[in-house]
Amino acid sequence: MPILSLDTYDIHIAPVTETLPPLLERLEFGRLFVLVDENTREHCLPKLREALQDQAFHTIQIQSGEQHKDIGTCQLIWQQLMQQQAGRDALLLNLGGGVIGDMGGFCAGTFKRGIPFVQIPTTLLSQVDASVGGKLGIDFMQVKNSIGLFRDPQAVLIDPTFLLTLPPREVRSGFAEVIKHSLIQEPQQWAQLQQLQELNAADWISLIPDSVRVKERIVAEDPYEKGLRKALNFGHTIGHGIEGEELHSADPLLHGEAIAIGMVCEAWLSHQLLALPEQDLEQISRYILSIYGHRPLAPERYRDYLQLMRNDKKNEGQSINFSLLHAVGQPAINQYCSERLIKESLDFYNQLQ
Amino acid sequence: MPILSLDTYDIHIAPVTETLPPLLERLEFGRLFVLVDENTREHCLPKLREALQDQAFHTIQIQSGEQHKDIGTCQLIWQQLMQQQAGRDALLLNLGGGVIGDMGGFCAGTFKRGIPFVQIPTTLLSQVDASVGGKLGIDFMQVKNSIGLFRDPQAVLIDPTFLLTLPPREVRSGFAEVIKHSLIQEPQQWAQLQQLQELNAADWISLIPDSVRVKERIVAEDPYEKGLRKALNFGHTIGHGIEGEELHSADPLLHGEAIAIGMVCEAWLSHQLLALPEQDLEQISRYILSIYGHRPLAPERYRDYLQLMRNDKKNEGQSINFSLLHAVGQPAINQYCSERLIKESLDFYNQLQ
Repeated sequence: MPILSLDTYDIHIAPVTETLPPLLERLEFGRLFVLVDENTREHCLPKLREALQDQAFHTIQIQSGEQHKDIGTCQLIWQQLMQQQAGRDALLLNLGGGVIGDMGGFCAGTFKRGIPFVQIPTTLLSQVDASVGGKLGIDFMQVKNSIGLFRDPQAVLIDPTFLLTLPPREVRSGFAEVIKHSLIQEPQQWAQLQQLQELNAADWISLIPDSVRVKERIVAEDPYEKGLRKALNFGHTIGHGIEGEELHSADPLLHGEAIAIGMVCEAWLSHQLLALPEQDLEQISRYILSIYGHRPLAPERYRDYLQLMRNDKKNEGQSINFSLLHAVGQPAINQYCSERLIKESLDFYNQLQ
Repeated sequence: MPILSLDTYDIHIAPVTETLPPLLERLEFGRLFVLVDENTREHCLPKLREALQDQAFHTIQIQSGEQHKDIGTCQLIWQQLMQQQAGRDALLLNLGGGVIGDMGGFCAGTFKRGIPFVQIPTTLLSQVDASVGGKLGIDFMQVKNSIGLFRDPQAVLIDPTFLLTLPPREVRSGFAEVIKHSLIQEPQQWAQLQQLQELNAADWISLIPDSVRVKERIVAEDPYEKGLRKALNFGHTIGHGIEGEELHSADPLLHGEAIAIGMVCEAWLSHQLLALPEQDLEQISRYILSIYGHRPLAPERYRDYLQLMRNDKKNEGQSINFSLLHAVGQPAINQYCSERLIKESLDFYNQLQ
């Protein structure tokens, strides 16, 4: 079973029925809590229950969706911990996607000044991305993750079989982060990835550890996002702008779908600004379109995309901050360019169809 | 000017007009914020403004009082930081007593996953106690400090002249922690302290550093309250019980006044259980009564005091946890005794008048 050992905790990639029992054996704790939403309660909790055998636990259920990742939901979680007399030795298992992991971790990290927690991510996005790096938080005043803290879990348990419970479109969305990790750090992984055309034929047991390893290495080098960690924002500046704006459309994009478009645009910017080879730009564009198809971007919305990019919390002053690529495997952080060039990158994506 | 250098930050004891300018010179930051309540805005902000010279800053004002140390007030603070576009490089100065320091530190520690902050405690209690140790937090569901985290400030600036802005009763209340620090760690300090009968004649510039140093040494040895740090709870088990119950009386006790009574009772318990010499018990009782006077405790309330002691978050299981004294300077943590003996300790205090 693949195990990635970090300085302060391990990431186990295997069925939870194998990974959870020895972990609980090793950890000393008082009361046990499991945080779920209505989806993971239905689709993932039965398997967790099997792994927990006759260990007693209390289930805390919240509503799914980013719109509930707020201080109101935190209060509901803290309240239940309090009512169930969770002591400082209580243990919280966060069973779900990014919202459950980020918010459950934040609540655990602040309850009685911090109780231990274990992340059990159930979406591909949270498995390869959100479960590594100790970033916890909630949204506040519509700004994503603006209240939070850095704190490590006791362990991360990645069970690839949970992916079978997800709609294929959800898995494809999470796959954008797998692509991104290979592009910013692992030319070889990127070459292998391009062989994979059918996601339902993917060998997650080997793909996930490779992808997690990229994130883990970057975070180990720069835990507090002072430098290199910003490389993980490749595709995200333009991607977030498109994602935010398209939220209001009849057919909103999923996070990874928007990031996929963002990576094409930012690969084009990398070609213009940093001489990313044309062949790489073509390969990136072709592969992303083969997985995600093409979604035309209405030029009359460009202004709104740019408006959202200007509000990104990663900017300093008025300039829009990009993380780009010199080459596959060679990221370049803190890059800036004219708004005209950003619009041209959107045009580049548009003409690909 | 006395400076205590800790591993990660310094505690400066001198007028803020001397300590703040060089600190701001050294720290790099973007926007500057000052958190006050209506009292510190009136009595302390003018002096801080003088220290800030022509440095621009934004004032965030909250209502004074423990009842406002809650998640609702945190949201008001985060909101103002957000509206004033505080970046990760913003700096927050917490100007006030324990509520401002605990809650301001918590808000800073969680805004954008943590912005830097400086504690400028203005009460004796917060100067010798709350400003050292990195414990930050708010009350939740009537449980004190139940949501919070550990995080160090950039610096603590203790300005003893702020004490002149306080009612004498407030200063006397804070003095209970000075007494406590000497009793648990510094027999010599305790001997000196007993010479001091008139608090308005106190030489705070030398008393405060001595007292802070005790807390600082204990916290350095046990930052996360696994052991020795519990010694700081001397007087607090019975003290909290009396304080909580007397909150509803016509003449509520201040925190330190209740702790002072608690120290007399727990000194008696120490004499019974741990052979604290009778002479020490007498000295402690006599000195505390000379400072605080005597407040008879109605025996029909003993049951209620005990009920509150049982709910203390430091207990494990059903037993009431005490931090007592083998001798002055020799604390003993995790002590337990019968409820009959606790009642007898209250009787002991009562018969002292």
